[in-house]
Amino acid sequence: MSEDPHTAHGGRIDLMRQAFPHAPQPWIDLSTGINPHAYPHGPSTHAYDRVLPEQMLRTSCEAAMAARFGCAADACRAVPGTELVIRLLPYILRERRVAVRRPSYADHEHAWRSAGARLSLHDDPLEMAKADDASIVVIVNPNNPDGRVCTRAEVAAAHAALMERGGTLIVDEAYADLSPDISVAGRAGAPGLIILRSFGKTYGLPGLRLGSVLAEAKVLRRLDALLGHWAVSGAALRTGQQAYGDTGWLRRTAAQVRRESDELRLVLNRAGLVDRGGTLLFRYVRADDALAVWTQLAEKGIAVRRFDNDPYHLRIGLPGDANALARLQAALSPSV
Amino acid sequence: MSEDPHTAHGGRIDLMRQAFPHAPQPWIDLSTGINPHAYPHGPSTHAYDRVLPEQMLRTSCEAAMAARFGCAADACRAVPGTELVIRLLPYILRERRVAVRRPSYADHEHAWRSAGARLSLHDDPLEMAKADDASIVVIVNPNNPDGRVCTRAEVAAAHAALMERGGTLIVDEAYADLSPDISVAGRAGAPGLIILRSFGKTYGLPGLRLGSVLAEAKVLRRLDALLGHWAVSGAALRTGQQAYGDTGWLRRTAAQVRRESDELRLVLNRAGLVDRGGTLLFRYVRADDALAVWTQLAEKGIAVRRFDNDPYHLRIGLPGDANALARLQAALSPSV
Repeated sequence: MSEDPHTAHGGRIDLMRQAFPHAPQPWIDLSTGINPHAYPHGPSTHAYDRVLPEQMLRTSCEAAMAARFGCAADACRAVPGTELVIRLLPYILRERRVAVRRPSYADHEHAWRSAGARLSLHDDPLEMAKADDASIVVIVNPNNPDGRVCTRAEVAAAHAALMERGGTLIVDEAYADLSPDISVAGRAGAPGLIILRSFGKTYGLPGLRLGSVLAEAKVLRRLDALLGHWAVSGAALRTGQQAYGDTGWLRRTAAQVRRESDELRLVLNRAGLVDRGGTLLFRYVRADDALAVWTQLAEKGIAVRRFDNDPYHLRIGLPGDANALARLQAALSPSV
Repeated sequence: MSEDPHTAHGGRIDLMRQAFPHAPQPWIDLSTGINPHAYPHGPSTHAYDRVLPEQMLRTSCEAAMAARFGCAADACRAVPGTELVIRLLPYILRERRVAVRRPSYADHEHAWRSAGARLSLHDDPLEMAKADDASIVVIVNPNNPDGRVCTRAEVAAAHAALMERGGTLIVDEAYADLSPDISVAGRAGAPGLIILRSFGKTYGLPGLRLGSVLAEAKVLRRLDALLGHWAVSGAALRTGQQAYGDTGWLRRTAAQVRRESDELRLVLNRAGLVDRGGTLLFRYVRADDALAVWTQLAEKGIAVRRFDNDPYHLRIGLPGDANALARLQAALSPSV
């Protein structure tokens, strides 16, 4: 795990504090794509720490997930965050010729590489399934960090192409809650299709560790065998059940982050950062010197995301309130 | 996963309710070996759901764990429960000739068997390392369910014997918090030794999902690669840090469960159940007809643990208060 504050994963404010000890407090963490407006879950969930997570609680949570995603409940498994599943997929699927996109969420590439897979890297996500050099194709949709979207028809075509040669399509829909029209969750359970959904990003509770895997029965059986009986905490199952059933919260939140995302784009644009895409929870911008902008912001106590071997791009999350947005705007202004 | 209430894992009160719908409420769950007196953690931990678990929080929790266990902090990893690690060990260690004890915590055997290992089963845990038919030996110490204890010197001898042929000893110390004199945590980091510690049992918070793996660097690196950056929830790290640093709570708890364990033995003994061992958190008893006793208790809303293919033994956890103990005593009395 990288301990370099420059290119570490998002969310490493601890490293940033060490690297910039004189930055003003508190730090504003815009280095992740996590909704700053967390789902309001009550302390009552603590009762769930005291017992082993019951199968019935798990079943209720999975039913709420499936209803939200629009898939069959028996094709849906609650998991303790999709990050763990990304690491385990090479041990669930036996194939070893894998196509991934760059840029994308790099842990997919890392997980397969660590497991000894032969990787092919592509720029166009739709080419990956057409090229016949891979039996596993990973699409992150919408893509992180650039927000590149594949339509539902495009993903379906990629799945069909892979199916013809007995392959598997992995669709990481970590940011699809707010773009339900591109989700292929409705196809969950089909052979050769694995869909990952993340809870923590949209619902603002990444520390809770909750996610979902939508897949055919044989994949879910292998996943069960690896994760055991009680992988997901009781608090996560309870909160997931409530949150996924709360359509009003999701609708209000979508409207709020849409407004805030527009405000963020305006602030970034005025500072000369060119919008190159993103989602409602983060923007992906181009700067002439991304390191200079990153450093300028860090010195003002604001963390944004840089990328390995990329001198031009930054990913910037939603500030979450007017005060944080104003601090970002001020920090981006040329010093006088 | 078994859905049979008779022989399902402990903690499946949901299945018991279905199987015995007319049993009095509330159910008393004595089917696990979990301390009924949970560590009093505050709702403040909810703040940790809202951010990704920081490396510094993880480091603090691991330091508190290591100080409690008496091992080097860099040999200690926080994990989201040891159950998951038991499932992953066959993918971390490459050897496939494994010796396990029967009776013992069956998930070890299941995990290796699912991964295609060749298993040898033993009655005497100390014979396992001497017999040269296995390169991996699993000892649960104290053993679950019968409480069989190997001394520290015996475990060290087993480790030495395995080391001579390049093998690995796995010591599951899930119940060792209250028997620190038998723990080999002080050897953590030595080649060929992996120690598992459970948080939820002693601290009464199994739904939180927290445990520790103590091992040499190359094993921890493989574990890190499988679990990823944020496998343990923020709330679990924070609670673990507090609880492992709280020596007063552990001392008071040890005294309390010792008293309650003695009271439980007395009640079981008076009912004709022969004590065959156990730990401070559960007793393992022999009955002439374990199924009859199990059914008699279930009809009174009390769940205890039976075992596959064993007509004689039951495992019974601590009732936790005088009312529950009285209900157990009454339920065990012959009907009049």
